[in-house]
Amino acid sequence: MFSNTRTTRIEWGDCDPAGIIYYVRYFEIFDVSTTMLFERAIGMKKIQYLKAYNFLGHPVAETRAKFRVPTRFGDEVRIKTDVVAVGRSSIKLEHRLFLGDAVAAEGSETRVWAVRDPGNPERVKSEPIPAEIAERLRNAPVAGG
Amino acid sequence: MFSNTRTTRIEWGDCDPAGIIYYVRYFEIFDVSTTMLFERAIGMKKIQYLKAYNFLGHPVAETRAKFRVPTRFGDEVRIKTDVVAVGRSSIKLEHRLFLGDAVAAEGSETRVWAVRDPGNPERVKSEPIPAEIAERLRNAPVAGG
Amino acid sequence: MFSNTRTTRIEWGDCDPAGIIYYVRYFEIFDVSTTMLFERAIGMKKIQYLKAYNFLGHPVAETRAKFRVPTRFGDEVRIKTDVVAVGRSSIKLEHRLFLGDAVAAEGSETRVWAVRDPGNPERVKSEPIPAEIAERLRNAPVAGG
Amino acid sequence: MFSNTRTTRIEWGDCDPAGIIYYVRYFEIFDVSTTMLFERAIGMKKIQYLKAYNFLGHPVAETRAKFRVPTRFGDEVRIKTDVVAVGRSSIKLEHRLFLGDAVAAEGSETRVWAVRDPGNPERVKSEPIPAEIAERLRNAPVAGG
Repeated sequence: MFSNTRTTRIEWGDCDPAGIIYYVRYFEIFDVSTTMLFERAIGMKKIQYLKAYNFLGHPVAETRAKFRVPTRFGDEVRIKTDVVAVGRSSIKLEHRLFLGDAVAAEGSETRVWAVRDPGNPERVKSEPIPAEIAERLRNAPVAGG
Repeated sequence: MFSNTRTTRIEWGDCDPAGIIYYVRYFEIFDVSTTMLFERAIGMKKIQYLKAYNFLGHPVAETRAKFRVPTRFGDEVRIKTDVVAVGRSSIKLEHRLFLGDAVAAEGSETRVWAVRDPGNPERVKSEPIPAEIAERLRNAPVAGG
Repeated sequence: MFSNTRTTRIEWGDCDPAGIIYYVRYFEIFDVSTTMLFERAIGMKKIQYLKAYNFLGHPVAETRAKFRVPTRFGDEVRIKTDVVAVGRSSIKLEHRLFLGDAVAAEGSETRVWAVRDPGNPERVKSEPIPAEIAERLRNAPVAGG
Repeated sequence: MFSNTRTTRIEWGDCDPAGIIYYVRYFEIFDVSTTMLFERAIGMKKIQYLKAYNFLGHPVAETRAKFRVPTRFGDEVRIKTDVVAVGRSSIKLEHRLFLGDAVAAEGSETRVWAVRDPGNPERVKSEPIPAEIAERLRNAPVAGG
């Protein structure tokens, strides 16, 4: 399965009056991590692959997270994201966010491959994931890639 | 168990390039809903009850959500929040966000009653929920309250 | 000139480790206030008037703000927004955010009436404000409206 | 005067239904840029220099920004931040955000050196900037630093 690791930094504006990260920010971090995994797997930026495959995005249908160790502004964190299942029109991913060696937060999410409903452009519907993309998400990244 | 319902509106800045709410915003909506439930149960604003009980907050240890129907800027939504369990030092809550009669999103979260670790003010530790607060969270709101 | 007043509440997640509002959130508050003013002046929700007038939005070209008194989570604030100038394709607005009787923050912004460039849908261009909308923005709200 | 340049990426969640950055996000980008400039000038992370100098932060008293070219998710941008004035208890900074060679956005801000009012911990007051910090902010960064 495909996997990607990135780093980011917790900022002052991400933290709340308790002086620790406002937990909602973790979902933004996870969302960016998923985008980066897709971009690397597909070999295009999101703005490009939305056009290339004429789709609307990969909205989250379901997500969960556990927060184990608080992080603070200035903390450099590392997020490892793994594809754990690729279905017909959905993908499941898992994130682990590390502060040093400790898993500070972990999340999982199920995303759907979504297009505008041609019969009703106000509505969003799911559609099968293109075979070549499913294939790339199922494979490990090429070494050094 | 205590319960509270509030309304809010999805705004332009909450929505993403797909034209629908950026799912991360739902967690902000749920967090505000939990605050409002606590404020009503305890009978004080959060800024007051943090002082009155000398605690740091009720950080989320675990959360999950399902997104069923996309909402858009301008949508008026209603969020019903229910206490579902009150433990020794943790509280579990559930949120249902309605667009009209449809449940557009639902979430659950486990929060802990947190204080600064006296031995290490950098650290956060959990502590038993004061009995009078546990009591109020376990009871239904007073009618008309 | 048109004018609108609304209230909102500063929330925990809007505040930073200094325990006061993270100033960036004021711009979100001002943006919602502008939307509400437009909606009331035009008599439609934003999602509707974007369609009705086939335009992309009213992005901010320039903005400035002064922050005078810090606000905190739980503070109920009132925002008065005034149209101060309506040009050919731009509108200038001013916001005053009150905490009690004190002006806690004030902002001004110049917005343009923007459409997609027909020759290049990647680009945004400004266009004259429709006469009936300019007219409504220049007039005071109808009493009780 | 001190100066710092950093890069960041505009993300999906930073963009609005017009498909371009929600302008409010620029202020978050500028705030992080200021933090990074201070950290580099002082030689400590923000969480450390707040403690070392026993102060509350450097809240923004006044800010303005111009948005010239819209940016989109996936855009890599470069932000150059310059100290332009160091007063007794205030600092003025300017930001230019580049998309390629174009200045896509520019901002300026006046920040104050703030401490808790000892007579009233609810209040924030300004205080003279420590001489060594004023000195560092007034000097150019050391080459290669």
